[in-house]
Amino acid sequence: MSDAWAAKPLVAVLAAPHPRARIFAAESWQELTAAFDVHDLTDEPDRLDDLLPDSFAVVGQPDLPRERLERAPRLRAVLNVEGNFYPNVDYDACFERGVHVLGCGPAYADAVAEFALGLALDLARGITREDRAFRAGQEHYVAAGNDDAFLLRGAQLGLIGFGNLGRALLPLLQPFRPTIRTYDPWLPDDVLGAAGMTPVTLQDLLSGSRVVFVLATVTAESEQLLGRAELAMLPDDACVVLVSRAPVVDFDALLDEVSSGRLRAAIDVWPDEPMPADHIARSLDRLILSPHRAGGIPQAFHQIGRMVVDDLHLISRGLPPVRMQAAAPELVTRYRNRPVR
Amino acid sequence: MSDAWAAKPLVAVLAAPHPRARIFAAESWQELTAAFDVHDLTDEPDRLDDLLPDSFAVVGQPDLPRERLERAPRLRAVLNVEGNFYPNVDYDACFERGVHVLGCGPAYADAVAEFALGLALDLARGITREDRAFRAGQEHYVAAGNDDAFLLRGAQLGLIGFGNLGRALLPLLQPFRPTIRTYDPWLPDDVLGAAGMTPVTLQDLLSGSRVVFVLATVTAESEQLLGRAELAMLPDDACVVLVSRAPVVDFDALLDEVSSGRLRAAIDVWPDEPMPADHIARSLDRLILSPHRAGGIPQAFHQIGRMVVDDLHLISRGLPPVRMQAAAPELVTRYRNRPVR
Amino acid sequence: MSDAWAAKPLVAVLAAPHPRARIFAAESWQELTAAFDVHDLTDEPDRLDDLLPDSFAVVGQPDLPRERLERAPRLRAVLNVEGNFYPNVDYDACFERGVHVLGCGPAYADAVAEFALGLALDLARGITREDRAFRAGQEHYVAAGNDDAFLLRGAQLGLIGFGNLGRALLPLLQPFRPTIRTYDPWLPDDVLGAAGMTPVTLQDLLSGSRVVFVLATVTAESEQLLGRAELAMLPDDACVVLVSRAPVVDFDALLDEVSSGRLRAAIDVWPDEPMPADHIARSLDRLILSPHRAGGIPQAFHQIGRMVVDDLHLISRGLPPVRMQAAAPELVTRYRNRPVR
Amino acid sequence: MSDAWAAKPLVAVLAAPHPRARIFAAESWQELTAAFDVHDLTDEPDRLDDLLPDSFAVVGQPDLPRERLERAPRLRAVLNVEGNFYPNVDYDACFERGVHVLGCGPAYADAVAEFALGLALDLARGITREDRAFRAGQEHYVAAGNDDAFLLRGAQLGLIGFGNLGRALLPLLQPFRPTIRTYDPWLPDDVLGAAGMTPVTLQDLLSGSRVVFVLATVTAESEQLLGRAELAMLPDDACVVLVSRAPVVDFDALLDEVSSGRLRAAIDVWPDEPMPADHIARSLDRLILSPHRAGGIPQAFHQIGRMVVDDLHLISRGLPPVRMQAAAPELVTRYRNRPVR
Repeated sequence: MSDAWAAKPLVAVLAAPHPRARIFAAESWQELTAAFDVHDLTDEPDRLDDLLPDSFAVVGQPDLPRERLERAPRLRAVLNVEGNFYPNVDYDACFERGVHVLGCGPAYADAVAEFALGLALDLARGITREDRAFRAGQEHYVAAGNDDAFLLRGAQLGLIGFGNLGRALLPLLQPFRPTIRTYDPWLPDDVLGAAGMTPVTLQDLLSGSRVVFVLATVTAESEQLLGRAELAMLPDDACVVLVSRAPVVDFDALLDEVSSGRLRAAIDVWPDEPMPADHIARSLDRLILSPHRAGGIPQAFHQIGRMVVDDLHLISRGLPPVRMQAAAPELVTRYRNRPVR
Repeated sequence: MSDAWAAKPLVAVLAAPHPRARIFAAESWQELTAAFDVHDLTDEPDRLDDLLPDSFAVVGQPDLPRERLERAPRLRAVLNVEGNFYPNVDYDACFERGVHVLGCGPAYADAVAEFALGLALDLARGITREDRAFRAGQEHYVAAGNDDAFLLRGAQLGLIGFGNLGRALLPLLQPFRPTIRTYDPWLPDDVLGAAGMTPVTLQDLLSGSRVVFVLATVTAESEQLLGRAELAMLPDDACVVLVSRAPVVDFDALLDEVSSGRLRAAIDVWPDEPMPADHIARSLDRLILSPHRAGGIPQAFHQIGRMVVDDLHLISRGLPPVRMQAAAPELVTRYRNRPVR
Repeated sequence: MSDAWAAKPLVAVLAAPHPRARIFAAESWQELTAAFDVHDLTDEPDRLDDLLPDSFAVVGQPDLPRERLERAPRLRAVLNVEGNFYPNVDYDACFERGVHVLGCGPAYADAVAEFALGLALDLARGITREDRAFRAGQEHYVAAGNDDAFLLRGAQLGLIGFGNLGRALLPLLQPFRPTIRTYDPWLPDDVLGAAGMTPVTLQDLLSGSRVVFVLATVTAESEQLLGRAELAMLPDDACVVLVSRAPVVDFDALLDEVSSGRLRAAIDVWPDEPMPADHIARSLDRLILSPHRAGGIPQAFHQIGRMVVDDLHLISRGLPPVRMQAAAPELVTRYRNRPVR
Repeated sequence: MSDAWAAKPLVAVLAAPHPRARIFAAESWQELTAAFDVHDLTDEPDRLDDLLPDSFAVVGQPDLPRERLERAPRLRAVLNVEGNFYPNVDYDACFERGVHVLGCGPAYADAVAEFALGLALDLARGITREDRAFRAGQEHYVAAGNDDAFLLRGAQLGLIGFGNLGRALLPLLQPFRPTIRTYDPWLPDDVLGAAGMTPVTLQDLLSGSRVVFVLATVTAESEQLLGRAELAMLPDDACVVLVSRAPVVDFDALLDEVSSGRLRAAIDVWPDEPMPADHIARSLDRLILSPHRAGGIPQAFHQIGRMVVDDLHLISRGLPPVRMQAAAPELVTRYRNRPVR
C-alpha cells in the first residue's frame, strides 16, 4: 500500500481545537514528519481542498461532506483528535470507501479513570472536605471526623457504562475486591461477566450501590438516564462520581439530593461551563467540584499524538490501525456530546 | 488447651483508649461473650488484679510488669487493641512464658492504604486545590488547570517502609504499572524484589521518585529519617504522602519545600495534634491537610474486634493466632510512637 | 434496524465443518430461534440461494462471491464459525456494502492459552516424561529427577505474536512475574509496553528466552518465521511451545534440535495431520506430542454459539457486534491457514 | 546484638539430608562465610558439642534435647533446612530461651504451586494421556480427543489446606477467575474470605469442586482426611491433585475411584517411595504419576540457602527473621511428616 505513494504519503493536520504542540510532543512530530509528507493546516484550513486529491490521511475533524471525500480518492483515514465525533463528516461515505474513521477516546481513558478513583476515595473519606475544615481551623482529629468514612475494599460499586472509561477504571478497582454491578445496554451480559462484574438493570445497579461511577456517553437514550426517580433509588449516603457527560444526569435533582444531605457527589462535567458564579453547587459541603479536568492532562494529549503516529505507520504498511478507536458505523452518528474547549 | 478451663476461658477486656463498642460490633461482642468468660473492666480497671490468676487473655494494654504477669500463670495472650506498643508491659516476661503478644496494626492497614492512594491521586491531579478554587469562583476548565497534572500510571513511586501499610498499599498501586523503589532496612532485598519492587537506598529512592509514600514507623533510627538534606534530594515537583508518623520527617523542612513551591505534600500526621490555629501549614496551597484520619475509621475499629475474637478462638483451640500481628521480641521495645487519642 | 423485518430477521446457518449442536448448545439454539427466523441449511446448503434475498445474516462460511452477495441486499453480517477465513468469500464486497465480517477466533483463545501454559509447565518440570518413566518402573524420586527442572517464576519468556492467543495467555503468565519479550510486527511498541511486556526483535526474543510461545498465525511473512538459523539463536535447553500453526516453524529443524537434546518442545500443530505412523517425532523424549487439541474443546465450541447469538442480537438492535472479531480488511485475505477438520 | 560477638558470630552447618552445595549456591555460601564464623559439620556432626557454647545459630536439624540447648547460651536460632520438623529438637526449650525455630517450607512453595497447576491443567486437558497415545500411534486429532476436556477458567476449585502451598498457588489460579472453595480448620473464615475464597466445610468443598488440590500437611487430625466416604462426595469426573502428603488420603480408595473411571487424579506423594514395581497405580489411564518431584528442584533448594543467609543477617543485626517460617509452638510438635530423602 505504501508503495502507491511515489514519495511519502501526504498527511493533512488540522489539530483544532488543540494547538498542534499540545497533542504532538516534539518527538512524535519529528517521527511523523520523517515518515509522511505532513502539511500543518492549523492556520490555513482552507488549503485542505488543494491537498485532498493526494491526501493519505486527515488528522483532525474538518468538514468532510461526501462531495469533499469524493475528491480524495487516496484517502485512507480520518483521525479525530478531539474526542467526540460531530456530524460535519459524512461517516457513511467514509465507510463505503474503506476510509478508517478513528477516534482518540482511549487516550483520555487512563486519565479519567485515575481521576474517578481519586474522586471516589475522596468521597468515601472526606479528603477535600476535611482539608477545607483544617484550613478554617475546624478540623476533627482521628475518629472524630470519620463517622461517615468507609472503605472501597469490599464495597458495592456500580458502573454505568462500560466503554473506554470503564475498561480503564476496572483494573484500578479490582484490588479493592469490590462487588461491581454494571449496566451497559450496548454489551451482552457475558462480556460483563467475563470481566468479573455482575450485569444488572439500571434499577438494580442504583438500589444496590454505595458508589456509582457515571461513565456513559450521551446519546438520545442516555440523556437524563439518571433522572430524579432514578437518583431516589440510590441508598442513603450513596456516592455519585460523574465524569463522562453532564446531560446523562438530571443535574438539579442530583444537587437537590446532595444539598439535602442524602447523597454525596463528585462532579467533573457541568451543564454549563463555566458555571454561573453564584450557582448553589459552589457552596455544597458534600460535593466535590471539578472543572472538567478529568481527561485533559498533558500526558493524555501527548498520547493522542503517539496514537496518530503509530496508526498512520500501520496503515501506510497495509496493516489495520490498533491504537485509536475505530468508529462503529452504528454509533458514530448517535453521540450528542458537545464540543469541549 | 481449651479443656484446661473447666468452664469458659476468662478474658479481661480493657479497651481504652477506645470505648468498647467502637472495636466490638454487637455481633463480635456476642460471639466473644458466648465463647469466653468475658469481664469488661473499662470502668473498673483495678479489678484486673483479682482476675489475673484465672485469666486466659487480656484484651487491651494495662500495666503488666513482670510481677503482675507472674500472678497470671494461665495467661496465654495479651491483645493490644490500640495500635502501638508502650513500655508498660514487660514483653520479655511475656515471651519467656509463651504468652502471645499481639498487635492490631493490620486492622488499620487497608484504611491507611486507601487513604494514601487517595492523597496521591489528589496531589497528582489537584482535586482538593481545584475544588477550593471552584468554590471561590476561580476554577480553570479543562486543559487550563491541568498543567502540572500527571498520571500515576507508569510513574516513579517510592515506598519508605514496607510493613503493614506498604503491604496493603502495594496491590492498590500495581494496576497503575508504576516503577516502585522501596527502602526498608529491616527487609532483605529478595523480599522486596519478590514483591515486584526495586530495593534501593534511601538516597536512590528520593532522587528517583515522583511520589514518595512515607510509611515507616518511628524508632530511634527512623526519627528525622527525612531531614532537610534528604528532602532536597527529591526531584522538583515531587509529591510526599506522609501517613505513618510525623517524627519520621523534619517537619519544618518539609513545609519550607512546599511553601517555596518545590514540593507538593499531603500530611495526615502532625508533630502536635491539634496543630496551632495560626500555623503556616493551614494556608499552603500545595499542601493537603488531613487531621490524622487515615486509619481510624469505623470499619478498621470493628476489624480489630473481629481479629480479637478470631484469634482468641484459635488460641483456645490450641492453635496459633493468625489475624493480629505477633510482636517481634526484637522490635516491640523499639517503637517510639506516641499515643493517638 | 430490526423493524426493517416485518417478522423476525432471517438467519441462514451453515455450521460446517461443525455439526450444528457442537457450537450451539440447546440453550443458545433456543435463544437464536426465538429471536430470529433461523434456517438450518446444514443438510441442504444449496437452499441458501433462495434465502439470500431476505437474509439478515449468514452463520458459516459458504461460497459468497460478489455476485451472490449482490443478491442479498439486506445482509448485515457473515459470521464465520470455523476459525479461519478462506478466499471463498469476497470480503471487499462485504466491506463496501457494510456487511460485518466476523470471526470466532476469540472463542478458542482461553482454551489454547490454558493448554499452552500446561505445556510450558510440563516442559519446565518434566511431568509427561516422568509419568512415562513411572509407568515403565524407572521413576526418579525427589531431587534425583529434577536436575533440569526450573520455575516459570521470574523466567525469561518470549511471545511470538500477540493476537487473541497472546492476550488470553498474558494474564495467566503474569502471576509468575516473568520477564516477557514479545515480537509482533503488526503492533506498535507502545501497545506491547502498555501491557507490561518488552517489545523486541525476533532475534532478541530468541536469544533471550528460556520458554518461547509460538502464537503467530500463518501469512506469507510468517511462514518459516522460525527457520533453522532462528532456532539456533535459542539458548541451550530452551523450550518451544508451538500452538498456533505448524508452517510458522521449520519443522525438521525443530525436531533436530529436540532430538539432539539441545531444545525441549511441545507441539500441538503438525505439518500433516495425522502424522505418519513411523515419524521420528513419536519417539523423542524431550518432546510433548499433542494432536491439535489446544483449542477445540466443548466449552470453546459452545462459546462460538454464544457469541453468534449475542452479536446477532446487537446487530439486529442497530448496535455494533462486540463478541466475535471483526475481520480487518487489511488482514482477512492474508491468512494462509489450512482448514482444520 | 551483633556486637556481643567480638569476632563474627559462630554458625554451625549440618545440612543433611542435603549435600551442602545443594542448598548453598556458591554466592550464598560466600556471603555466609564472609559475615559469619561458619563451621561446616556435614562430615563431622559430633563436633557440634564443642561448638555449642559459642554458637549463634545452628543450620540444620541435629538432635537438640534440652540439655544440649542449655549448653548453648548464646544460641539465637535453629534453622531447619529440611522442610519438616522432627521431635529430635526440644522446641519448648527453644521458645523459652528465645531461640528462633525457623523452617524452610516457603522455599518449596512456588515450586509445588507451579507443579500443582501443571498437574491440574494436565488432568483437565489430558496432556500426558494424549502424549502417550500419540507415541503409541493412537492419537485423536482436534475435537475427537477432547470430549472430557474442560477449562480452569470459571471452574469450581477446592483447596484443602491454605498454608504455604495454598498461598503460593492462589495467585496462579486467580487469572482463571475460578470459584475457589477452601477448607482449613486452622484459619478463621475472614482470612479465607479476604483472600477471595469461600470458606467451607470439607463436605461442601468436596461436593462442589471439579478440581480439588490437596495441600494439607499431616497431623493426627488430617490423616486419612479424605477417606473413602469423602472421596465419594466428589462429583463424577472430578480431579484430585495430591501434592502435600500421601497419608492425608485413603490411597486405596483414591486409586479405586480412578480405576473405576469415576475420578481423575494426579499424585506426587506416595505411601511408599519407591512404590512397588507391580503396583496397579502404574497402569491407570486416568492417573498422572509423579515421583515426589513437586518441590525439590534446584531453584527451591538454593532458595533455602538464600533464606538462611538473609535471616542470619537480620538476626545478627538485632532484627526479626522474615524469610524462613517461624515455627508455631502450638504446631511444631503436631506434624507427622516422614523424612523425605
